[in-house]
Amino acid sequence: MEKIEATGSTERIDELNGRGYRIIQDTKGFCFGLDAVLLSAFCIVSNGDQVLDLGTGTGVIPILLEAKTRGGHFTGLELQSEVADMAARSVKLNHIEEKVDIVNGDIRDIRNIFRGSTFDVVTGNPPYKTVSSGLISPNEKKAISRTEVKCTLDDFVGGATYALKPGGRFYMVHRPERMADIYETFAKYSLGVRYVRYVHPFRDANANLVLIEGIRGAKNNITVLAPMTVYESVGKYTLEASEIYFKERLMEHGRG
Amino acid sequence: MEKIEATGSTERIDELNGRGYRIIQDTKGFCFGLDAVLLSAFCIVSNGDQVLDLGTGTGVIPILLEAKTRGGHFTGLELQSEVADMAARSVKLNHIEEKVDIVNGDIRDIRNIFRGSTFDVVTGNPPYKTVSSGLISPNEKKAISRTEVKCTLDDFVGGATYALKPGGRFYMVHRPERMADIYETFAKYSLGVRYVRYVHPFRDANANLVLIEGIRGAKNNITVLAPMTVYESVGKYTLEASEIYFKERLMEHGRG
Repeated sequence: MEKIEATGSTERIDELNGRGYRIIQDTKGFCFGLDAVLLSAFCIVSNGDQVLDLGTGTGVIPILLEAKTRGGHFTGLELQSEVADMAARSVKLNHIEEKVDIVNGDIRDIRNIFRGSTFDVVTGNPPYKTVSSGLISPNEKKAISRTEVKCTLDDFVGGATYALKPGGRFYMVHRPERMADIYETFAKYSLGVRYVRYVHPFRDANANLVLIEGIRGAKNNITVLAPMTVYESVGKYTLEASEIYFKERLMEHGRG
Repeated sequence: MEKIEATGSTERIDELNGRGYRIIQDTKGFCFGLDAVLLSAFCIVSNGDQVLDLGTGTGVIPILLEAKTRGGHFTGLELQSEVADMAARSVKLNHIEEKVDIVNGDIRDIRNIFRGSTFDVVTGNPPYKTVSSGLISPNEKKAISRTEVKCTLDDFVGGATYALKPGGRFYMVHRPERMADIYETFAKYSLGVRYVRYVHPFRDANANLVLIEGIRGAKNNITVLAPMTVYESVGKYTLEASEIYFKERLMEHGRG
């Protein structure tokens, strides 16, 4: 059997969950964050679903979803070829090549990469910051994943809508300060907002992340779910966050 | 001294706070709710501010704000003449006629009632439901206060913006399911969204109200504040809700 390894001096292999899955990360370039883990817990994948993750980075979302759902197939699209290569090595490391594909390509070119209306679920953890909103990381990999230098919110949501079947579900994690842009962009692409869940680091803290479910071709039918709190106190996860991290329990969010 | 009384068989006089203020309510037509009390706690009125409450109903918001702030003057605009009369009697009941005016008029006609750009703060508890969203109350007073039969969100936000000074603050309470409309309407009138706070009846329940602060002429600079929870358990208020109701403490919301 081919031996998969972390390559380059800044890569390392980490345990991903309690079930033996592992993932390669680049400590200098690209590690996944809490946001990706929360998004994978927030999204609902039904049996047999075709799932696409836009801007997949390390591949953490398709790998976690393969582990915890009965989706039919998972595809991760990643712009940066080195990052895509690293994600593909993580897929091999877990022996899930038959269920997960990593595709190296640009969301802005999605119409030439995938046929339209083919996915039941699209997920995404887009760059949070607008180009005008502040300092851009001098590290190119980080800059591309964090700031809209290569992909704006409009590119991202437009690409997701193109890939989704009518009635298909789009799950995105973003920053609360972008909510006005998010509602506007979802409306532009006729993605109906169904669920919004704010994530607060502590119970009394302002939200620093938001999870959103949109439905292609639906009208807005907005429910703001009970908030998620990450830490009970400094260094101590809440029960919910701990279960998401360590037991891969789907978040309870009162969704019918 | 003129004696102020509840008139008509369905009116009653209630204690409003722990400081001797009272208010007349019409048990069949028009009582204030938790939403108005939360809004009065959410909004910030500085010394000397000129304050306008749109769709004031019983007058609860200007009366509470007169009691707890050092604002300069408070005006409540109410469409329904009988309701405006009831609110004016509550103002007299509390001997605050010099600080609070109740004006009987239509928000859609606001340009003929007030000069533009004259208020530092505008507050409002608009009708929550669109005309197409369901059953309209057969009680006309309730229908007008709950459903957009006489005043749409656009009328309301447009009227507020007209009345506000540039840089003035608009505080609104509404339903979370209308957030997409709210962001769109605020953008239309160049009201920058500054703070959003969701209100959840219980910690694990979906939000059923939202409090919003917008600034006339500002860009969006959105902070989603720590959530407010109303009940600790059935029938037992949280400390925060209890203090708002009984001690008129301003809500703590981490605003700078």
